[in-house]
Amino acid sequence: MENIKGLCTNPDPVTQKYVFNHTMLRVRDPEVSLDFYSRILGMKLLRKIDFNEWKFSLYFLAMIENESQIPTDNDKSRARFTAGLSGVLELTHNHGTELEEKTPYHNGNTEPRGFGHICFSVPDIKAACARFEALGVPFQKKLGEGGMKDIAFIKDPDNYWVEIIEA
Amino acid sequence: MENIKGLCTNPDPVTQKYVFNHTMLRVRDPEVSLDFYSRILGMKLLRKIDFNEWKFSLYFLAMIENESQIPTDNDKSRARFTAGLSGVLELTHNHGTELEEKTPYHNGNTEPRGFGHICFSVPDIKAACARFEALGVPFQKKLGEGGMKDIAFIKDPDNYWVEIIEA
Repeated sequence: MENIKGLCTNPDPVTQKYVFNHTMLRVRDPEVSLDFYSRILGMKLLRKIDFNEWKFSLYFLAMIENESQIPTDNDKSRARFTAGLSGVLELTHNHGTELEEKTPYHNGNTEPRGFGHICFSVPDIKAACARFEALGVPFQKKLGEGGMKDIAFIKDPDNYWVEIIEA
Repeated sequence: MENIKGLCTNPDPVTQKYVFNHTMLRVRDPEVSLDFYSRILGMKLLRKIDFNEWKFSLYFLAMIENESQIPTDNDKSRARFTAGLSGVLELTHNHGTELEEKTPYHNGNTEPRGFGHICFSVPDIKAACARFEALGVPFQKKLGEGGMKDIAFIKDPDNYWVEIIEA
């Protein structure tokens, strides 16, 4: 990857201890979002933090191979464990939005655009998409449709796009 | 983490091979965004893909401890390597936006809200924030300000919020 404008190929060595830890999305109803990310995609809940005085709660999820890795002693050790990981998803619930019928949130793919999607890679995309269909997950784009036939997009309960690719 | 409504604690074992691979953000000018994510945050560029017929390019970056891990033989092996990782950032450049003076993109933190931020954890947040200040990085919230005094938010070139926490 040489000669790419703007790219720094020898960053300050201190940055090599930085971790791209998480992506935060606001969700209407944590009950349906947790169901989606845990049951459909297999994520594990690492931490739940309630800020009752500010009327919001945070949920931190990640793909964890072995659940015994997750500390159970106290929230401090869970916090340390969570902060050291990469590939964490933070869901923010502003209390009360779960009473709204439709999500108040914007998925970034119509104007004004910005954030586009999150993506999961899977070992067998045909099998994964067949499983999503059987589970009634809505698709933004099915496998074989559109210009890029080898990827799919499903939609989470707030209509955020979740790209599915084969690893 | 028991008794959390919606949470599935025994998802289908097939999901355990799923990987939360990446988060996609649209950027105005890849030259300034690559500078930010590589020089300031230390990310490495894994792949660049040009879709000239559709007038966009994709840049995949991640924190990589040892650059010799990145395959150099061909794009297929880089694609396989990239798809197997967690914590990848995909930047989408729609050709021509770099000619606009201001970013056409919305960071999700004013109406309509949705996506909130990405986050990096660092070993020493005071040192990291001092470094960002010395490098002229704009802050959304400095350490010690606001309700949560132990975190900071810097802003990327499109004004996306990048949270900084201590691991």
